Amino acid sequence: MPERLDSAYRGRRVLLLGGLGLIGSTLAHRLAALDAKVTVLDAGLPQYGANMQNIEGIAQAITLRIGDIRDEAVMRELVPGQDVIVNLAAQVSYTDSLFDPLLDLDINCRGHLLLLELCRALNPQAKILFAGSRLQFGRIEKIPVAEAHPQLPLMPYGVHKMAAEKYSLMYHRIHGLRTSVLRLANPYGPRQQMKHSKYGIVNWFIRLAMDNQPINIFGDGRQLRDYVYVDDVATAFLLAGASPQADGEVFNMGSGIATSFRQMAEDVVRIVGGGRIACVPWPKDYTSVETGDYVTDISLITQRLGWAPRTSLADGIAATHRYYQRHRDAYWKP
Amino acid sequence: MPERLDSAYRGRRVLLLGGLGLIGSTLAHRLAALDAKVTVLDAGLPQYGANMQNIEGIAQAITLRIGDIRDEAVMRELVPGQDVIVNLAAQVSYTDSLFDPLLDLDINCRGHLLLLELCRALNPQAKILFAGSRLQFGRIEKIPVAEAHPQLPLMPYGVHKMAAEKYSLMYHRIHGLRTSVLRLANPYGPRQQMKHSKYGIVNWFIRLAMDNQPINIFGDGRQLRDYVYVDDVATAFLLAGASPQADGEVFNMGSGIATSFRQMAEDVVRIVGGGRIACVPWPKDYTSVETGDYVTDISLITQRLGWAPRTSLADGIAATHRYYQRHRDAYWKP
Repeated sequence: MPERLDSAYRGRRVLLLGGLGLIGSTLAHRLAALDAKVTVLDAGLPQYGANMQNIEGIAQAITLRIGDIRDEAVMRELVPGQDVIVNLAAQVSYTDSLFDPLLDLDINCRGHLLLLELCRALNPQAKILFAGSRLQFGRIEKIPVAEAHPQLPLMPYGVHKMAAEKYSLMYHRIHGLRTSVLRLANPYGPRQQMKHSKYGIVNWFIRLAMDNQPINIFGDGRQLRDYVYVDDVATAFLLAGASPQADGEVFNMGSGIATSFRQMAEDVVRIVGGGRIACVPWPKDYTSVETGDYVTDISLITQRLGWAPRTSLADGIAATHRYYQRHRDAYWKP
Repeated sequence: MPERLDSAYRGRRVLLLGGLGLIGSTLAHRLAALDAKVTVLDAGLPQYGANMQNIEGIAQAITLRIGDIRDEAVMRELVPGQDVIVNLAAQVSYTDSLFDPLLDLDINCRGHLLLLELCRALNPQAKILFAGSRLQFGRIEKIPVAEAHPQLPLMPYGVHKMAAEKYSLMYHRIHGLRTSVLRLANPYGPRQQMKHSKYGIVNWFIRLAMDNQPINIFGDGRQLRDYVYVDDVATAFLLAGASPQADGEVFNMGSGIATSFRQMAEDVVRIVGGGRIACVPWPKDYTSVETGDYVTDISLITQRLGWAPRTSLADGIAATHRYYQRHRDAYWKP
């Protein structure tokens, strides 16, 4: 962890929206260790990532509020006085966004707009971080993917992440809010939900391997992805939150390393010591939303924020495996 | 009017959402003359453009329904069986979008998503046209502005037009819907609302000139704009609606001619024969959302659809002036 984070958050008030999920809870642990005053708001929606196990060990050190970012009354209470607000409250499944695009709009787009409006009115000095997504880009034209890559999303999830990013930039430009956006590649790691396979494929494969189940790979498994460990993701958010030079900026963020889907699956089987790989044809519904190979150009975030990923895929899978060995019962029933 | 439109709409069912406004009602007149079966849905919201005068002469030939595109029950009734659906139901003021971005989101973004979802379920063969905007681009980097110009909107209105455009393209790509988007420059002409100056500056200046009032120009009035006459706009929609090659496409649409703000105002004063120009400083709120010079690159729509603007600014102002001389009382009280 960069040294400048040692004191950057001491005594600072940080609001984590969606703070019981993968990235939010990892941030909560990191921030608690940095002596920040952490408030978590989470709606605990079924099938989403919230899990009380995720704050084990820090539950006494943080303030937890169960509620929805779309609830204006709750937000009016929580937004004032915060130094940093991280919006990770999201519908996270792109497949679900295809089945219920209006719900995705409501949470991922209107929710962020409401946050920005309330910050403008009640807390214009706050730093506001937002998690964008590689899925904003749609079909990939050129890898590694830099910030200026065209955005033509293939699913509502991508449109709404893009719109929320544009809000962030606009509120910086016309209202002076201190917004930053990190567009995430494929995060994985301890504390992600393990109930279903609709997002978080690395974690899902770890579950299958731990249960010694078949692991299905679409096609030949050669499509490239960029898997980034959640602790590295959290460091990027912490740096962006502490860096004035991130105000009004968008960064692509990932490991910067291209890994084939098949290689990832083989690593999981080897490291976990279970499961077996099976190749199956691409499901019909998937081909229309397949983005093609993806790997992040991380040069901008590296230059501007001094961020670099620290965790190899093998180390990340091993750490994730160890976590769920200790806490499996809190995430799924074998 | 291109000859191929002569029979393209005969007997065809066309649903005009927001059909009592400037562009919608112009389309209603054109379509009635082409023997289409026209249904107009309009919410008649206060301060928006709906005006019963706009359908004078065709009221018996069309079906009018007062209702909101956000009302799913009404939309479920109207969407099935339509051959062409034109979505012009919008919150049209970019300044209002700054004051109430959540309302703008609800109408301009969620309304269009709801339409697309209902078409997918109930009428996947319909042609679906959407009115995008030059304000999707934000600050202009290069004129004339082509389709690939970066989009970094400076107000919620622009974000929502952009998001709705992305929906249109996405529903074409993944669901096969026949969508087209026309991004409009500055439309003007007969039948626009004349109650306030929040959009439609050419019409507003015509009103001021007819009332012999001062016409305020910000700064030196040298900023360039692209004013496009509503009948040319309607022709573009008709062509897009009748052209399979427009499916899944986006076109920038305007006159293709750069006119300074001051020149437009001088034309209005000269042609109407009233009013007087006064230069005033830029209001503080305007500078942060000023896009810079704008003129449309119309080469793509010209090549693909055979569309070209036919009406000079002088002729358009004169025709608009004549219209409001005949019908002033239906639009404003002098």
